[in-house]
Amino acid sequence: MKSNHDKPVVLGFDGNASAAALAHQLGCRFETAELHRFPDGESRLRIPELRCDSVIIFRSLDRPNDKLVELLLCVRHLRNCGIATIVLAAPYLCYMRQDAAFTAGEVVSQRWIGSWLATLVDGLVTVDPHLHRAHRLRDVVPGSCCETVSAAPLAGELARQSFSDPVLIGPDEESAQWLQQAACGSPPLDQLVARKTRSGDCQVRLQLPEFGLRNRDVVLIDDIASTGATLVECARLARDRGARKVTAIVTHALFDDGAIPVGRSQLLSDIWSTDSVPHPSNRIHLAVPVAAACSSVLEAIHRKRRAAASPC
Amino acid sequence: MKSNHDKPVVLGFDGNASAAALAHQLGCRFETAELHRFPDGESRLRIPELRCDSVIIFRSLDRPNDKLVELLLCVRHLRNCGIATIVLAAPYLCYMRQDAAFTAGEVVSQRWIGSWLATLVDGLVTVDPHLHRAHRLRDVVPGSCCETVSAAPLAGELARQSFSDPVLIGPDEESAQWLQQAACGSPPLDQLVARKTRSGDCQVRLQLPEFGLRNRDVVLIDDIASTGATLVECARLARDRGARKVTAIVTHALFDDGAIPVGRSQLLSDIWSTDSVPHPSNRIHLAVPVAAACSSVLEAIHRKRRAAASPC
Repeated sequence: MKSNHDKPVVLGFDGNASAAALAHQLGCRFETAELHRFPDGESRLRIPELRCDSVIIFRSLDRPNDKLVELLLCVRHLRNCGIATIVLAAPYLCYMRQDAAFTAGEVVSQRWIGSWLATLVDGLVTVDPHLHRAHRLRDVVPGSCCETVSAAPLAGELARQSFSDPVLIGPDEESAQWLQQAACGSPPLDQLVARKTRSGDCQVRLQLPEFGLRNRDVVLIDDIASTGATLVECARLARDRGARKVTAIVTHALFDDGAIPVGRSQLLSDIWSTDSVPHPSNRIHLAVPVAAACSSVLEAIHRKRRAAASPC
Repeated sequence: MKSNHDKPVVLGFDGNASAAALAHQLGCRFETAELHRFPDGESRLRIPELRCDSVIIFRSLDRPNDKLVELLLCVRHLRNCGIATIVLAAPYLCYMRQDAAFTAGEVVSQRWIGSWLATLVDGLVTVDPHLHRAHRLRDVVPGSCCETVSAAPLAGELARQSFSDPVLIGPDEESAQWLQQAACGSPPLDQLVARKTRSGDCQVRLQLPEFGLRNRDVVLIDDIASTGATLVECARLARDRGARKVTAIVTHALFDDGAIPVGRSQLLSDIWSTDSVPHPSNRIHLAVPVAAACSSVLEAIHRKRRAAASPC
């Protein structure tokens, strides 16, 4: 008889609704880690007794440093409690943009955070990781069973439902991968990729290729909204070309401190996002594809272990 | 001929004077890691080319989570550059107070942070770590070469220089270890230990044992000042007993957000601290004992390696 131990438990952090939705989608038990931050900046975690073999830790890694330390604490505690399999479901995966030494001596954080995560967990599920120079997540998190979910098809669907024959624009070359996935589908949509040059954290300069936008609805497609500066600048260019309405759909609504308030910019009607990072702009729910990816990663881990244990 | 490679390099972070003082004391080259925090909360490090075999990373781990992630990035980068020996000189060592599961399911962070540090660095130097249930640093950071510096003798010296026959008071049982070291020496000083009970992060209740304090100068001795609440409460009790002037000497001036402003409390004349955590209250410089501890840890690492490499 299969015991209840065979079913994974989803472990979320204080009040994250997406973690509960993932557990519901997987038909799994849902438990919550209780988090306290002391006045001196240390974190304290309290984790209920889980009585299971596999745990899916659900936590998006936006504003990552506190969360990475808490992940270390959580994983070591779970291992010490005898949990054999730990999958991290982190819809937003941090440090993926620091993928090269842009100046001499610069630490390539993507590499060190990725390889460190690989030592912590057995599997990783994420959504639209910002991979540019490294093309595959398994090269960044070596040895770990990885699955990447793309929100782009859902973004394309939302664009089709919301507007009549919209034009999709990606604000830089890096967004071309998501743009294509959003634009294909039925019906296929017009798509443009802008050229971006960046000076400092917050200043960007964009150029749009020649393409008529007069009286067209435009949907900007990108993976991350940080300051919002790129999206607003891109909207300005589209409006200059006569676009009727410009809306942005992003996967990860980071919206750093100092982000441009979208409502106040007359250029961008709206920003919609997935629930990868909790934000009032969330319009796309990821529980279904993330649950499928978690199941597939758990299967891959078990397959790998059976292969390693088999005598031949 | 011994090459310059044999001398360690001290690596500090942006503008930390204590790191430079340590390098000066050791007669070593001093280099600085340049730190940038992006608006999204990620850290970027830039580390100059060091061309050496051993590096002493100097960084106090107050407000620790950002710094722990940056330590991971720094160490992985240095290892990738071929640095064979890395010692962490962290005058303040974080997470030492979370040394037991005070309620069910509580993660014993001391254990997991300690064992993680042991996997990162070859040696560790710290000052007055808050060890209560674990008595030795090497039990917390297993397999690492460790040295603990005590600031208590320097605190005792400062008390003797500043006051005539002062009474030293430790605000709780945990401070007794430092109090004794401060009180012995020449001449030995009167010492008292208060009893502390804590409710919440900021509320404490103290009791002083019977001892006449009328017209005596009192010096409170403790390892950490966080909110300052304990020190002010202890000062109140000492003043109620007729103490003339109450001053506190602490090793680590954490002074969290929301700390009690010392000047405004009429009870406590002054707080003095070591330069373990940079703060206007710093009066005791630790470069000399920390340098000695670093040399001794480096020697221990090399001795251990020679022993491991010897054929018998």
